[in-house]
Amino acid sequence: MGSLKEERKTTGWAANDPSGLLSPYTFTLRKTGEEDVLIKVICCGVCHTDVHQIKNEYGTSNYPMVPGHEVVGEVVEIGSDVSKFKAGDIVGVGLLVGCCNSCRPCEAEAEQYCKKKIWAYNDVYTDGNRTQGGFSASMVVHQKFVVKIPEGLAPEQAAPLLCAGVTVYSPLSHFGLKKSGLRGGILGLGGVGHMGVLIAKAMGHHVTVISSSDKKREEAMNVLGADKYLVSSNTASIQAAADSLDYLIDTVPIHHPMDDYISLLKLDGKLILLGVVNVPLQFFSPLLMSGRKMVTGTFIGSMKEIEELLEFCNEKGLKSSIEVVKMEYINTAMERLANNDVRYRFVVDVAASNLQD
Amino acid sequence: MGSLKEERKTTGWAANDPSGLLSPYTFTLRKTGEEDVLIKVICCGVCHTDVHQIKNEYGTSNYPMVPGHEVVGEVVEIGSDVSKFKAGDIVGVGLLVGCCNSCRPCEAEAEQYCKKKIWAYNDVYTDGNRTQGGFSASMVVHQKFVVKIPEGLAPEQAAPLLCAGVTVYSPLSHFGLKKSGLRGGILGLGGVGHMGVLIAKAMGHHVTVISSSDKKREEAMNVLGADKYLVSSNTASIQAAADSLDYLIDTVPIHHPMDDYISLLKLDGKLILLGVVNVPLQFFSPLLMSGRKMVTGTFIGSMKEIEELLEFCNEKGLKSSIEVVKMEYINTAMERLANNDVRYRFVVDVAASNLQD
Repeated sequence: MGSLKEERKTTGWAANDPSGLLSPYTFTLRKTGEEDVLIKVICCGVCHTDVHQIKNEYGTSNYPMVPGHEVVGEVVEIGSDVSKFKAGDIVGVGLLVGCCNSCRPCEAEAEQYCKKKIWAYNDVYTDGNRTQGGFSASMVVHQKFVVKIPEGLAPEQAAPLLCAGVTVYSPLSHFGLKKSGLRGGILGLGGVGHMGVLIAKAMGHHVTVISSSDKKREEAMNVLGADKYLVSSNTASIQAAADSLDYLIDTVPIHHPMDDYISLLKLDGKLILLGVVNVPLQFFSPLLMSGRKMVTGTFIGSMKEIEELLEFCNEKGLKSSIEVVKMEYINTAMERLANNDVRYRFVVDVAASNLQD
Repeated sequence: MGSLKEERKTTGWAANDPSGLLSPYTFTLRKTGEEDVLIKVICCGVCHTDVHQIKNEYGTSNYPMVPGHEVVGEVVEIGSDVSKFKAGDIVGVGLLVGCCNSCRPCEAEAEQYCKKKIWAYNDVYTDGNRTQGGFSASMVVHQKFVVKIPEGLAPEQAAPLLCAGVTVYSPLSHFGLKKSGLRGGILGLGGVGHMGVLIAKAMGHHVTVISSSDKKREEAMNVLGADKYLVSSNTASIQAAADSLDYLIDTVPIHHPMDDYISLLKLDGKLILLGVVNVPLQFFSPLLMSGRKMVTGTFIGSMKEIEELLEFCNEKGLKSSIEVVKMEYINTAMERLANNDVRYRFVVDVAASNLQD
C-alpha cells in the first residue's frame, strides 16, 4: 500500500459521462495527513443518490466520478494525530468527508447542515483535489468523518446504516421519538423506508407502512415486522387511521399530496420529509393548526448519530435486507436500483471484487 | 342580578343575519351551576374572527349571535364547587368555554385542541343552549375556562391577551422559544402581529418585522420597538437576512409564498403559522431538509398558557396598542377592523355602554 504520508495510486470504478456506466479507473490518493486514516475498502452500499449522480441528474456531476458513500473498510495506516483508530480497525465512512468546523451547525454537532460540507465524492477537498467514493480499493479520510464499526456487526450489515440507516435514525433521535410505545408511520418502502421499519420496530414502536399498492403488504408485515399496512389510494382506510400517529417518515422522492398524511398525525405529530422533491409540496395550513402538527425535513445524520445507530443496531441484532454483489455487477445493479428492483439495498463486496490496488 | 342558580335575562349586542350589523338583544343566561362563575362584563376585545363570524364567512353562523371572546369582567356569583374565584374578582374568558376533559389533548392540558371544545359563542353548550359571547352585560362560564386577571393589569389591557396575546405566546412557550437572546420574525403587523412584537421584545428577543409595504416601518421600529423591518417584496433585503432567525411567526391569513420565509430561518428554525389560510400553501421541501427546519401551526393557547401570559405581561408592564370604544360604536369598529383600520385592537368598554341588564 506504500508508506505513511506518500501519495499512492488506487483503483475504483468510475462513471465517465452521463450514461452513468461504471468502469475501472485508477487515480491518486492524497498522502495520509496528520489527522487522516487510510482505509482499505471491504464493502460499500449503493444508494439512489448514486444513480442520480452518475447520470448527472442533479446537473452538478464531474467525471470521472467514483461513487459510493456507505463505505466499510479496514484501517491500514493512520496519521500522527490520530488516536481514535489503529491499523486493523473496521471502520465506516458515510456521505461526508469534511466541514468547516466553525459554523453554528458544526458547533452544534450537526455538521451535516454545514454549508461548507465536503461530499465523499463529486466534490473538491481542501487540498484542491477531487473527492472519490467507496467503489474503490482504498480511501483517505479525515478521522472526524470515520466511525468505528462495533465488534459483532458484519461489514455488509453496517454499510447501509451509514446513509440509509442514519437518515431515518437522525430525526427519530433529534425529535425525541426514540422512546418505546410510540406509533409511527413509514411512507414508501424503498431503501430508506425498509430501514425505517426495522429501526422503528427495534425502538419498540407500533409501525404502519403506507405504500402506493398492495404489492409489498406481505413482505412489510411478515418479513419486516410492520404492524399495519395502508394503501395510500384507499381513502377510507387512510381516514379511519386519522389522528393515530406520533410521526410519519415520508421517504417519497416525487410530488405527492400531503393533507391525508398530516391528518394521520396526532396532537404534536411530526411529518418528517426525507425524500428530496424538486417541485413544491402543498398542504392546507388549518390541518397543522388544529393539532400543533409539524412538517419538517432532515438530511442524513451527524457522525455522532451514526455512532449511536451502529451501537443501537448491534445491540438489537438488527438485520437489514441486502443483496451483496460484486463490482463487476454494478452496472446491472444501478439499472435495477433505478427501477426499484431490489429488496432493499445493494452492497458491493469490494474486497472480493477484481480491483487492482 | 337575581340569586344563585336561577336563570336570568341579560342583554348583549347581536348580529341577526349575514349583514353582520349588531343591535341590542336580550336573552336568557343559564343558572349558575356548581362549577360555574357568573361574570359582569367590564370590557371585551374585538378580533378579526368576530368579523368573519357575524358575516357568516365561515358558513357556520347561527343567529342571533352575540360575538366577543376577549372578555374581562367581575365575578358576581359563584357555584357551590367553585373555590378558585370569589365575588369581586376580576377575571377573563377567552375563545373557549368547554371541552371533553378526557381526550389526549385535554389530558395534556392542551384543551384548545380538543375536538369537542365549545366556543364562547356561535356554539351549543352541554345543556343544549346556544353560547353567546362577551358583547353582553353578563356571562355564565365554567370555572375551568375562567382566569384571574392579576392585580395591576388593567381590564382593557388584559382583554387582547386572552386571544391575540396567547395566540402568539403559546407557540413561543410550547416550542421552547421564551429564552432571551433569540432572533425572531413577525410576518404581518395586525392585531396578532403587533402583540407578537411586544411579547417577543418583552422576552428579550431581537425582533424583525416583515410587512408588505414600508407603511408601518416607523411605527414598528419606534412605537412597538422592533429591531429590524423588512419589506416582503424586497427580494435583496430578504435574501440578505437568510439564515438569521430562530423563528418566524406568520400571521398572514391569505395565500402567500413561503420559500423566502423558510430561507430566513437558521438551523432548527421554526415557521409558525397562526393565520388560517383557506387555500393550500406551497413550499420547496429541500429548504426544510437543508436545515432541519420546521413548518408548524398552532391555535390560540391553553388556559394554563393564558394564566402564564397574564402574569408575564403584568410583570413586564407590557402595554398593547388599543382603541377603546363604546358598544354603540361597534358596527363602525367592525367595518374599520374589516379594513385593517385600527392600531391594533379595538376593546369595547362594555360596562360604560348602554346595555340593559
